[in-house]
Amino acid sequence: MQYQQLIEATLATKSYGTSPKELYDPIEYIMSLGGKRIRPLFVLAGCDMFDVDVNNALPAALAVEIFHNFTLVHDDIMDEAPLRRNKSSVHKKWNNNIAILSGDVMLVKAYQELCRSDATLLPQLLNVFNDTAVKVCEGQQLDMNYESLFKPSIPQYLKMIELKTAVLLGGSLKMGALIAGVDEKNAQLLYEFGKYIGIAFQLQDDILDVYADVEKFGKQKGGDIVANKKTFLLLKAMEMAEGKRYTKEELHQWISAPNVAAAEKVEAVTAIYDFLNIKELARAEMKKQYDTAIKFLNEVKANPAKKANLVALADSLMVRES
Amino acid sequence: MQYQQLIEATLATKSYGTSPKELYDPIEYIMSLGGKRIRPLFVLAGCDMFDVDVNNALPAALAVEIFHNFTLVHDDIMDEAPLRRNKSSVHKKWNNNIAILSGDVMLVKAYQELCRSDATLLPQLLNVFNDTAVKVCEGQQLDMNYESLFKPSIPQYLKMIELKTAVLLGGSLKMGALIAGVDEKNAQLLYEFGKYIGIAFQLQDDILDVYADVEKFGKQKGGDIVANKKTFLLLKAMEMAEGKRYTKEELHQWISAPNVAAAEKVEAVTAIYDFLNIKELARAEMKKQYDTAIKFLNEVKANPAKKANLVALADSLMVRES
Repeated sequence: MQYQQLIEATLATKSYGTSPKELYDPIEYIMSLGGKRIRPLFVLAGCDMFDVDVNNALPAALAVEIFHNFTLVHDDIMDEAPLRRNKSSVHKKWNNNIAILSGDVMLVKAYQELCRSDATLLPQLLNVFNDTAVKVCEGQQLDMNYESLFKPSIPQYLKMIELKTAVLLGGSLKMGALIAGVDEKNAQLLYEFGKYIGIAFQLQDDILDVYADVEKFGKQKGGDIVANKKTFLLLKAMEMAEGKRYTKEELHQWISAPNVAAAEKVEAVTAIYDFLNIKELARAEMKKQYDTAIKFLNEVKANPAKKANLVALADSLMVRES
Repeated sequence: MQYQQLIEATLATKSYGTSPKELYDPIEYIMSLGGKRIRPLFVLAGCDMFDVDVNNALPAALAVEIFHNFTLVHDDIMDEAPLRRNKSSVHKKWNNNIAILSGDVMLVKAYQELCRSDATLLPQLLNVFNDTAVKVCEGQQLDMNYESLFKPSIPQYLKMIELKTAVLLGGSLKMGALIAGVDEKNAQLLYEFGKYIGIAFQLQDDILDVYADVEKFGKQKGGDIVANKKTFLLLKAMEMAEGKRYTKEELHQWISAPNVAAAEKVEAVTAIYDFLNIKELARAEMKKQYDTAIKFLNEVKANPAKKANLVALADSLMVRES
């Protein structure tokens, strides 16, 4: 897709600073690790939707990509994640202090980039960006709370992924639309589309961890199961196991077993999921979120061909098996 | 001073958010620990200088104070500082992850606050704020590099404190001036005044750690000496001891001694400082920076009585012994 190339080309020529190198090398590093660049794509798509030159939206597109990578750097410290995109995470390659401070300056750089947008649009754009950024932080805190403190309900889990992941996709589309000069109502409809699509993406990630075709997925299946990650699947399984005494007990045993072989645990928990029909329940929830997204998109007053393009883009991200 | 009260009153009614409480409680906590509120005072003073209602400058004043406190939260993690204003630092009272994430959201909140300024001024204000914020991060990285990596020269040390501490004072005054509608040239002159005053403040802090009247200073003397902190005094002493073989060796021994009584070390290193005339040399450097600041202020086209007020405010901060 041509927008992907525009984004990669823009990122490739971008310099974040040089000195002190301990501050700027990690930024070059994380930004060059790649990824699908969904968020900047959504900024450009939000602008293109209304037939406005997407070059106007490049600063905002870069801003959301830098912001997203800032969250990855700080989240990886908090989650003690050694790897990011199959390479060392920033805090592992350097150290925690450098990861904290590089992340901080990335957040400022994201604002600097955003501020290169048309000055008359700045108040609106900053409003969306700030609001989204706060929500992303709230989502990360809820994620940490849920992992360490208690078992969230399914609605709590959905709210958490909405904040941590989905609102930034909504915000990206909305900023693109605002840059195209669209009224608040249509921009907000695109925001809602992006938000529900984002929730659907995360549910798909949860499903793929367990049910992906390993050949295409390119990484070991069941990482979430091994780590006892509270995904939609696990929470749904816990919910469905209520009243099924032996299933509940068995699931609980696998979760609390201290030294269990990973492959064995993945196989056993997957079998429980299968028994409880979790894959279909998760897919149904994903479809529900996806359909809600489409409903919002249908209400947007825009070029129908461009709306179809956005659905195609979303679908290409939905059916991916990696 | 009435501006101090205006700032405290505004801060007292300010709410940063409520849920999740792990994210917002630390913000309430650090913002309520007090401090001299120099930066927001400088924002208001920069506006008042040109006889414009300082209420226009309140959002920017709050923004710099929130930003400053964000840097304290993250710096305290990096420096492993257990105390802040004689209370537990955020990462000690909660934990590192909460301190990282609360700090992140504070940085966003600072932008949110700044964005409540007059929309037509936003591009200019954000320009100053972003530029200053980047420099503060660079200064913190240089500080960490210098503490752990090598012995900086005096010019390197001065550059570091300029970035880490002084530019935010300059930026605060400049934002106040821009809010008053002043041209870039006069706003920049105020920036330079604030910057050099900020360097003078830091040099005074370095001096006070060793030479303050303990009664007035309210904390133990020589904390920097005990911690081998590379202050202006220590770096100047190292420089002056070059060529004085026994003094140099003695200073080196005190710095590298592993288990030495704090009081004994402070007394001995202070004696070396006295022998090398370090207090006077530091005071001379401080006066030089102060005089440079005044030179810039003299060039500002503003109400002379208001300029005198700003000098009085700076002096009240300079001669303080706590």
